[in-house]
Amino acid sequence: MLAEIITIGDEILIGQIVDTNSAWMGKELNQIGVRVHQISSVSDAKEHIISALNEALERVDIVLMTGGLGPTRDDITKHTLCEYFDSHLVFNEEIFKDVEHLFHSRGRVVSPVNRAQAEVPAACTPLPNKQGTAPGMWFEKEGKIIVSMPGVPYEMKHLMQEQVIPRIKSKYELPIILHHTILTQGIGESMLAEKLVEFEDNMPEGFKLAYLPSPGMVRLRLSAFGLDRVAMEKTLLRLIETIKKVAADFIYGENEQQIGEIIGEMLLEKKLSISTAESCTGGFISHLLTRIPGSSAYFMGSTITYSYKSKTEVLAIPAELINENGAVSEEVVRLMADNVKKKLGTDCSIATSGIAGPGGGTPSKPVGTVWVAVSTPKGTSTHLLRLGDDRQRNIQVASETALNILRKRLMEESLD
Amino acid sequence: MLAEIITIGDEILIGQIVDTNSAWMGKELNQIGVRVHQISSVSDAKEHIISALNEALERVDIVLMTGGLGPTRDDITKHTLCEYFDSHLVFNEEIFKDVEHLFHSRGRVVSPVNRAQAEVPAACTPLPNKQGTAPGMWFEKEGKIIVSMPGVPYEMKHLMQEQVIPRIKSKYELPIILHHTILTQGIGESMLAEKLVEFEDNMPEGFKLAYLPSPGMVRLRLSAFGLDRVAMEKTLLRLIETIKKVAADFIYGENEQQIGEIIGEMLLEKKLSISTAESCTGGFISHLLTRIPGSSAYFMGSTITYSYKSKTEVLAIPAELINENGAVSEEVVRLMADNVKKKLGTDCSIATSGIAGPGGGTPSKPVGTVWVAVSTPKGTSTHLLRLGDDRQRNIQVASETALNILRKRLMEESLD
Repeated sequence: MLAEIITIGDEILIGQIVDTNSAWMGKELNQIGVRVHQISSVSDAKEHIISALNEALERVDIVLMTGGLGPTRDDITKHTLCEYFDSHLVFNEEIFKDVEHLFHSRGRVVSPVNRAQAEVPAACTPLPNKQGTAPGMWFEKEGKIIVSMPGVPYEMKHLMQEQVIPRIKSKYELPIILHHTILTQGIGESMLAEKLVEFEDNMPEGFKLAYLPSPGMVRLRLSAFGLDRVAMEKTLLRLIETIKKVAADFIYGENEQQIGEIIGEMLLEKKLSISTAESCTGGFISHLLTRIPGSSAYFMGSTITYSYKSKTEVLAIPAELINENGAVSEEVVRLMADNVKKKLGTDCSIATSGIAGPGGGTPSKPVGTVWVAVSTPKGTSTHLLRLGDDRQRNIQVASETALNILRKRLMEESLD
Repeated sequence: MLAEIITIGDEILIGQIVDTNSAWMGKELNQIGVRVHQISSVSDAKEHIISALNEALERVDIVLMTGGLGPTRDDITKHTLCEYFDSHLVFNEEIFKDVEHLFHSRGRVVSPVNRAQAEVPAACTPLPNKQGTAPGMWFEKEGKIIVSMPGVPYEMKHLMQEQVIPRIKSKYELPIILHHTILTQGIGESMLAEKLVEFEDNMPEGFKLAYLPSPGMVRLRLSAFGLDRVAMEKTLLRLIETIKKVAADFIYGENEQQIGEIIGEMLLEKKLSISTAESCTGGFISHLLTRIPGSSAYFMGSTITYSYKSKTEVLAIPAELINENGAVSEEVVRLMADNVKKKLGTDCSIATSGIAGPGGGTPSKPVGTVWVAVSTPKGTSTHLLRLGDDRQRNIQVASETALNILRKRLMEESLD
């Protein structure tokens, strides 16, 4: 079963917002065996919406649209679909009750503009939206499905989960799509490809391997399409095992795992706690650890020491040590890691000190110079990173690299 | 002048990655007066790429493609375009030198797989890529332009800035597109629309207003299309002034400004410094402040105090105060703000303590309960937020709301 997604809105085309809805919808649809054939982002113009819809309906059976539904004048999807289906707007009492309920719960009164949102094309089945004022709309035409949802991500997600996915599942008998992703670090795409030449030559029918490189890592995605879930899962498992053997040294996780999550699982399993002392990463390592649910079980706290005073006051780094070596130095970062560990009584710690940029570089310590210290019950190691000149990227790469150094050390040390 | 963007890759369609390239390209193209008509994301399949390219060329004069260029087997764009333009691959010595240079600078040797990347269709002008191994490709056909770039964002950005944008500008005489966005908080989309009814009724020809809601804020985007830059800028300025009068109480910034940047500018202007003491936000406020270049001038440091011990040890919060009121309480969050300010010797501070979820809620303090304290030279205020049950969203909304409370206080206090 194939679907297409049409996202409506000039704000996407001029780059004011990144369309994150499509990726989320693609993932959800895949899980029920619906493959997304194409995603099209179009402008807030009636003719454009209609031509995109016609093109999509020629290719697939399900078209999901988001955006262009809301209380304001720049919204156009509802009127366009009304015309497209040669229908007229009718006031829907139940939808209006939902709108009223939402407003009352927020202590606000319903305005005439919001009352108009309870008008929907007679040709559609309205889908109640508990998170906002614009209902979804479900149309059927010549055995095909067209659904329109608001573009606000949490309203769209609510409608997908509560209404659209269950209705699609009950209408069609769906095939099976399986994906498995293996996460690697420390090897480039081309080197990885050379290691996997034989593997790819022997790939069975219906299976596919893709390389997804991003700064500092390459994800390997295996996909399977078919009807026999048991057989597919068995083959997939065999393929995963082969990749794991061939690329063993470089694999650090699977599927959507984040490094903060992997570290969290290791710490929980080993009953270890952690703290961080961050300078150039400015709290981002702490954020990567604490955005994981349940992280309070092993994450005790951090000190973000941007100024000299905070380094001396909070972390008791001697002023002489900073004056002699500079704040961005092996000596200072090592003591930061050791002292935060003592101060917060944790088993492990990570410390960073560097020049994130764009200013602050010197000939001997250019922008992108970052010292990392990683401490475990077995001791403290220090690492020098030489990154680029993009501040945001330096913060991110330094944070992820530091966490990965800790992951490797915890793994090696548990083998001792 | 109209353009379309085609992004190639199954990883986009199955939702494994969010396509951020298109938004970035849309913004860059707009700035030179090229309007993006449509963005299409298609699969790694020859027929699909060709049909999307044909459809786009029927609608516009410029088609920019990203993805499906790289050293591995799943890459298909180069071969597809070679066939499309009825061309053949030729080995390009200069491109190969670039690849060699890149590998040598990273201390690696060129593999046969990478050597093949220096083969490009004879029909194209290869665009040298200093950031990676796959060159861009520039084709012209019947007065139209087709460009293919790798999908890795920093490689694509480099090629756009160094090659594609300058070449488009020199080939066409381009019209003018202007945008201006006004950022509002504290008012819903429909209420804002009611305030702007008259404004919209009197909107001049060639101008457009759009409402872009996202959690906790609504952005108002004014767009202008035309040929007379001076007249357009004058009208736009007048429209901006009108909106600023009508919605004065709710406007906090303009265009792409981030709250961390706005706070930073205010602190610099007032010569004030800041620190944070974060519990539930886990370092995210600190990150929002420190990702701004130059933030070390006013940001001194933070304490992330997740555990009781870190609250008592680092911030000297009395254990009795926590036992009596709970860590998530007005009393504790107020003392956190006051003590971090003293400890790091700053003029301002922000503290947070809450239940980000999904676990940890109680009947009296459900998930989403967050206490915020904001301290300035004029004193400390406390604020109770009642957020939802999504951890990541709670961390984000609590952080941005806390920064906005500080912004409002700094603004009010400078009027005293």
